[in-house]
Amino acid sequence: MRAPLIAAALLVAAPLHADPLPSWIAGDTKAAILDFVESVTDPASDDFVPVADRIAVFDNDGTLWAEQPAYFQLLYALDILREKAEADPSILSSDVLKAAAEGDMDGMLANGLDGLIEVVNVSHSGITVEDFKASAHEWLTSQAHPGKDVVYAELVYQPMLELLRYLRDEDFQTYIVSGGGVDFIRAIAGEAYNIPPHQVVGSEGNTTYELVEGEPVLTKNGGISFVDDKEGKPVGIMRHIGKRPILAGGNSDGDFAMLEWTTSQEGPSFGLLVHHTDAEREFAYDREGHIGVLNRGLDEGPERGWLIVDMAEDWARVWPGTE
Amino acid sequence: MRAPLIAAALLVAAPLHADPLPSWIAGDTKAAILDFVESVTDPASDDFVPVADRIAVFDNDGTLWAEQPAYFQLLYALDILREKAEADPSILSSDVLKAAAEGDMDGMLANGLDGLIEVVNVSHSGITVEDFKASAHEWLTSQAHPGKDVVYAELVYQPMLELLRYLRDEDFQTYIVSGGGVDFIRAIAGEAYNIPPHQVVGSEGNTTYELVEGEPVLTKNGGISFVDDKEGKPVGIMRHIGKRPILAGGNSDGDFAMLEWTTSQEGPSFGLLVHHTDAEREFAYDREGHIGVLNRGLDEGPERGWLIVDMAEDWARVWPGTE
Repeated sequence: MRAPLIAAALLVAAPLHADPLPSWIAGDTKAAILDFVESVTDPASDDFVPVADRIAVFDNDGTLWAEQPAYFQLLYALDILREKAEADPSILSSDVLKAAAEGDMDGMLANGLDGLIEVVNVSHSGITVEDFKASAHEWLTSQAHPGKDVVYAELVYQPMLELLRYLRDEDFQTYIVSGGGVDFIRAIAGEAYNIPPHQVVGSEGNTTYELVEGEPVLTKNGGISFVDDKEGKPVGIMRHIGKRPILAGGNSDGDFAMLEWTTSQEGPSFGLLVHHTDAEREFAYDREGHIGVLNRGLDEGPERGWLIVDMAEDWARVWPGTE
Repeated sequence: MRAPLIAAALLVAAPLHADPLPSWIAGDTKAAILDFVESVTDPASDDFVPVADRIAVFDNDGTLWAEQPAYFQLLYALDILREKAEADPSILSSDVLKAAAEGDMDGMLANGLDGLIEVVNVSHSGITVEDFKASAHEWLTSQAHPGKDVVYAELVYQPMLELLRYLRDEDFQTYIVSGGGVDFIRAIAGEAYNIPPHQVVGSEGNTTYELVEGEPVLTKNGGISFVDDKEGKPVGIMRHIGKRPILAGGNSDGDFAMLEWTTSQEGPSFGLLVHHTDAEREFAYDREGHIGVLNRGLDEGPERGWLIVDMAEDWARVWPGTE
């Protein structure tokens, strides 16, 4: 269990005027980020943006942490589903759920996102929000990723941690805006990213307020009330933040609308896509598969002025605590 | 149009060690508030609460501003409904809508909250979020309240403005958690309360992300996706803030669950109900009527340790800019 290392890495104070992005290799990509942040924070600049409007939003899976071989929340849901099915096999009431319990990822995802939602739905219900977060936190900080020799919570991208901290140092508010479940991400966002719960926007499950033995609790009771993905991301941002961001970062076409909305406004804005080109240190994928598919962003991003971050070329290191 | 007065009143800096609540009459009520805030902010106190957990939530209608003769948002919705019906009478497609357009409040509210939702639904659709907020802001700062000789935006409670500022000075985050619509409140919350949009939680209408003439917009398209009232308030708080508050203020039984949840936790907490006892300066109402009904809070609040604020007895003045 090496998760505390992450928190420790965040706490190391940078000397004044030190490079705020030491894990980004010097070049056009790094320069573009520094130039944008400098221009919107310099009171003498035409592009100056007041502190209250310095809103930055980031996708989570594939943008701040890894998402292969599948979204971590899905892998967690599968573990919980198997646990629940051992106690009561009758919960495997559909082909999707049976495939999921058998670890047949293709069968589960045969119908796209719906299969994923069905699994999450069954595995994330009948539990209080607090107990769910404790369970997710325990899993993320104790279970080892298949293929990487560390717990899931450590598979955050060091360059993105530096970018988050740099933006906050420049008085940005840094939000996560994820298709993943809001409670799952909040279970670890403080520790992993130094982001408090109110700055996490995500998909939302139905929750009920009720008294259990006289004590009020909030219970996750199955069903999804809001999907914070694709066109849902700008909607989620408006609902939670109530303002259009000036910087948006993502890695898949699920982030397209969020970047489009962010970069279509009058005044300065910045769109960034992490391109997974690094089979050696992380993973290499884009146009194919079920997870983190990136087509439209690669085709249209450059002409829209979005920065395509080439993980293999632009990042000196990928993971915290590595050289 | 005297709304800027409010903003000006908020900006007057208080001298160090001055009374942070000058519009609260010295007595048990004021002392209870000061004692609680001092105990949770004093590092030497057993009740000390770290800054990150100093979350305070306030209902809006009847708690931070007036709500008689009806919720301001409802009066706005009626004006818009009448405007729309003049252009197209066929939109008055139900008895509720016909009653509403004729100003027959009892007919409109005959079936309770459903009538209100129907009116809001018809009047708040087919408009972008930005245009809606501009329209609401224009109305709130230009239309005079019936019976009070000022625009709606000025009918905020000076003692509550002082409480909000006092809490923020003591490193609380102050949130609005309202049954009213989140976009309506955000239209004025910065100016009226110095509360930014991301700290407003409210009921939510369906919103769609779409391209209009190539430009992305968020359009309110009718229908309500979340009602932030009664048991919905703790749910809304968990969705948006992700933490249990330590202080909650309200004025009606719509706030009961929020106060119950806040004050049932281990550790220090504070519940406050504004009791409308002041027919002369504001309004006097509680157990009867359609708006701001307070029964359970009066019956159970005191034994639960909640502070009942007697507007007539506890407030030296009610409105900003008055003696």
